[in-house]
Amino acid sequence: MSMLLDHLLKMENHNSIFESAVRTLPLPVCAAFGDAAGPLPAAFAPSSHILATRDAEKVAASFPDSVRASGNVVLTSTGVNRNAPRGKRVAVLFSGGPAAGGHNVVCGLKRVLGPDNTLLGVRPGPKGLIKGSLLEITDADIERFINTGGFDFLGTDRTKIKTDAQFNSVKESCLKHKLDAIVVIGGDDSNTNAAVLAEFLFKGIKADGSGVQVIGVPKTIDGDLQIGKLLPISFGFDTATKVYGEMVGNVLQDTRSSLKYWHFIKLMGRSASHVALEVALQTKPAVTLISEEVAGEKQSLASIVDQIAQTVVARASKGINHGVVLIPEGLIEFIPEMKGLIAELNDTLAHPDAAGFAALNSLQKAEFVESRLTPANARLWSSLPVYVVRMLLAERDSHGNLQVSLIPTERMLGDMVKERVGEIDARIPFAAHYHFFGYEGRCGAPTLFDAAYTYNLGLTAGSLILDGRTGYMATVTDLGRGGVPQAIPLTGLLNIERRHGKDEFVIEKAMVKMDSPAMRYLVSRRAAWAADDLFSSPGPRQLWGNAARQMPISVALNSGAESLEFLIG
Amino acid sequence: MSMLLDHLLKMENHNSIFESAVRTLPLPVCAAFGDAAGPLPAAFAPSSHILATRDAEKVAASFPDSVRASGNVVLTSTGVNRNAPRGKRVAVLFSGGPAAGGHNVVCGLKRVLGPDNTLLGVRPGPKGLIKGSLLEITDADIERFINTGGFDFLGTDRTKIKTDAQFNSVKESCLKHKLDAIVVIGGDDSNTNAAVLAEFLFKGIKADGSGVQVIGVPKTIDGDLQIGKLLPISFGFDTATKVYGEMVGNVLQDTRSSLKYWHFIKLMGRSASHVALEVALQTKPAVTLISEEVAGEKQSLASIVDQIAQTVVARASKGINHGVVLIPEGLIEFIPEMKGLIAELNDTLAHPDAAGFAALNSLQKAEFVESRLTPANARLWSSLPVYVVRMLLAERDSHGNLQVSLIPTERMLGDMVKERVGEIDARIPFAAHYHFFGYEGRCGAPTLFDAAYTYNLGLTAGSLILDGRTGYMATVTDLGRGGVPQAIPLTGLLNIERRHGKDEFVIEKAMVKMDSPAMRYLVSRRAAWAADDLFSSPGPRQLWGNAARQMPISVALNSGAESLEFLIG
Repeated sequence: MSMLLDHLLKMENHNSIFESAVRTLPLPVCAAFGDAAGPLPAAFAPSSHILATRDAEKVAASFPDSVRASGNVVLTSTGVNRNAPRGKRVAVLFSGGPAAGGHNVVCGLKRVLGPDNTLLGVRPGPKGLIKGSLLEITDADIERFINTGGFDFLGTDRTKIKTDAQFNSVKESCLKHKLDAIVVIGGDDSNTNAAVLAEFLFKGIKADGSGVQVIGVPKTIDGDLQIGKLLPISFGFDTATKVYGEMVGNVLQDTRSSLKYWHFIKLMGRSASHVALEVALQTKPAVTLISEEVAGEKQSLASIVDQIAQTVVARASKGINHGVVLIPEGLIEFIPEMKGLIAELNDTLAHPDAAGFAALNSLQKAEFVESRLTPANARLWSSLPVYVVRMLLAERDSHGNLQVSLIPTERMLGDMVKERVGEIDARIPFAAHYHFFGYEGRCGAPTLFDAAYTYNLGLTAGSLILDGRTGYMATVTDLGRGGVPQAIPLTGLLNIERRHGKDEFVIEKAMVKMDSPAMRYLVSRRAAWAADDLFSSPGPRQLWGNAARQMPISVALNSGAESLEFLIG
Repeated sequence: MSMLLDHLLKMENHNSIFESAVRTLPLPVCAAFGDAAGPLPAAFAPSSHILATRDAEKVAASFPDSVRASGNVVLTSTGVNRNAPRGKRVAVLFSGGPAAGGHNVVCGLKRVLGPDNTLLGVRPGPKGLIKGSLLEITDADIERFINTGGFDFLGTDRTKIKTDAQFNSVKESCLKHKLDAIVVIGGDDSNTNAAVLAEFLFKGIKADGSGVQVIGVPKTIDGDLQIGKLLPISFGFDTATKVYGEMVGNVLQDTRSSLKYWHFIKLMGRSASHVALEVALQTKPAVTLISEEVAGEKQSLASIVDQIAQTVVARASKGINHGVVLIPEGLIEFIPEMKGLIAELNDTLAHPDAAGFAALNSLQKAEFVESRLTPANARLWSSLPVYVVRMLLAERDSHGNLQVSLIPTERMLGDMVKERVGEIDARIPFAAHYHFFGYEGRCGAPTLFDAAYTYNLGLTAGSLILDGRTGYMATVTDLGRGGVPQAIPLTGLLNIERRHGKDEFVIEKAMVKMDSPAMRYLVSRRAAWAADDLFSSPGPRQLWGNAARQMPISVALNSGAESLEFLIG
């Protein structure tokens, strides 16, 4: 017994049997890094691939140093770099929401920088960089965090570095810690911020007039940081969708075991529907909503509800009184009429007439609003469940805007479908359960795909630094054919977007395209999945055995792969 | 590309890469069944272990045939049964909520009955038995369902066979399908029902005057069907707690990555807190509530809230503004004062005075109720969040009782903790997220433990039938030492309980015992887990590799095991 108690004590603090085992998993490296046992930095040279956005001229004017240096040309690895410098001091930080594999980026960086350079961790995120809160990362840290997490090693935050004071603080942190380079691990916004930082730190920072290099690493579980073959997918997407995929698969099996429930499942993913699409391809549920399609076809809320209700009715006619509906988190904002209603609602509530509004009770508020809306919006308004109306009336952020993410879309749709099914045929049994799968998928141990991919992204980012580059995002292409480390000039991704009433440089989010192979595949199969239980259950992600080496289905389809197996090294 | 499309089509309908791979996993068998490649039925003989409950006499009076035949003596396997009969027709059904591993019970049954006997599946559950809806189970079915699911092969339902008409229908089904035996896979209620059925079918059913045998198999993810060393755990518990354990571990890593959220997680388990206890032992969160402890110490809701708030405050003082609180689903009914309030509330609302009640608005209702409650209950009433008050006022089942399970305990506690933290120190940041993990854990692919355990339970149940037994529950003991098939006389488990105003025979639910090694271990470590992040992340359950062979920690502790590794065969 005391043996077991000893064992349990030793398992505390990140030492579960699983965590101890995954630390020993070997990681492959791309050929450009030489041998997996002792990877070396890769050297880079310009490719023939030049990036250009519609706002390229304005970008060149605002990022003169970066654009002059890179020419917006993609760099590709040319083999091992035998002349890498020594004594570099490199900081790494996590930015934005966490994603699985972040630790392996750090591990790849540490490995490629080797004992001759210093790697420092920023705690936490951009805020830590502003505050100058850095600590040296040791080999023991790497041994502890490899193949696990999460961003729990360093933590993360969402601070956007934008004011002069913040930029100057970052400069001070660079000087205080004698930094030669900064690696920013983040999504579209964080990599935009990395581009701005790269330009700001390009030169004149250190005493000798030189600058501090900045390299971005593409992270986001949402999957909306994609650039064709140059960046088939951001890291974290595979793990998140495999975590959600297992849960959805389990729920699907539950529906066919219990034979009496519909489950409405909202999946994390702020805006784009890549997560819902990938999970649908893995699990084959009865209904999958794709926000981009809803927006493109200008679907009304009523038509979405009716479409689901018709599926419920059709299945019921065969005795199938169960099913799963997948809903992307951002759906509401993609329904044109909901967008219109919310906009008019914000205007109505901001109107001087609304002065006595706060004193009204819920019902009076709802009636007041209804009387002032245009007829179409008033009809939509009166069709919404009471708790949604209450939420639309109550919740406003500090800018007076509605926090759409707080609306329980899954419950709203379920309740409206129940009503619609009752209208069509009151004898049809309909009972629903609701889920939101999100936080469970951001910090699980990375899949083999994410573990290998992020380790090689780290090796690539470190190599770019040792190759003297700044203003690039690391990438590894050709993930089914060994992997090729490359570098994407960040300025080549920037466009101008109007946000909060002013022009801002942004990396545009990659949305689901209706004509992409992955979407076309969903469209080709979904009628069959709606008609009958054809689901499959992808199971818990495996780190060992024959089921371990799978890339995301949507990535395989969109990149023209012949199989789901990835191959790095 | 077309190769990939072909592959994706073939993956539909339970043919994911994972599902195809797990079907090939070899399953070990206990020595009593001979060789794993071709397991044979085991024979059984009485052990020296006789079961006795406080109501044994009344049980003997109501179950005369069963008690006379078994003497309430536990049977133990004596090696391979070389004289097993042929030509038996056996039906198997799932009863109650689904649990992982059910398919492997069926596979074990089919394997041990072999080609000389016939196995039929009942669809779905007891309702299917009443309706006589049975189909023959083939070897192809076994190949398809082994190591997967869920109860999705046959479906399940919750019908309790109790009326004369129902018993007669069952008898007709037995005659129609020429059944010699029925295997009931279910929890405490279903096994109680199996005992009743065994007595009813004991004799005089078939033309020759003989009966139909009934064997129970212990299933429930709640873990409340446990009988010391005779039944260390019901099947499905290991898989469910490992599914929840991964999710809780992922969320824990998210808290330490994001550094700003408390997550309040409710875990399925209708009454007992075994699930919460096991998940806590796996993950080591800041706070774990155990219903049985709350009841035993007569904790008030305010004291529970204060205890969590004090942990929030203490961690905040060290800069830790995050954590996880685990909450067993049934908690509310274990808080003595909530039980008292709900009872008084039911009385108050049933009172003739309440005639005009329905016409009141929410606030008026709340005030009406408050004015009629005893002072202590009125105080508690006024401390509850508005939505809980609204729910307590609104939701009544068909018997006029409150559906306690609908109260979002996790949100209620979170909101009350937020208020309490604000009272203690308004500067402490506190933001919370809420989860209910339940349906995700009932139908995932079984862990290696559940897969092997259930297969051997199926072999045991089939062996008992071929050994001519009835009225027993199959079990496999000594799970760390090869496994010993045994049989527990169901009548030896029955007690009398007052339910809905009349005496009923029941198998009492096994609750978490405060003096059990598992609970004592939680108590010994929880202050340390509350003070600092000492969590570990059990990761996704593995079916291959070094992390695959783990039994539940609470089961290992309570059975005095030296390690977490199980050994069957």
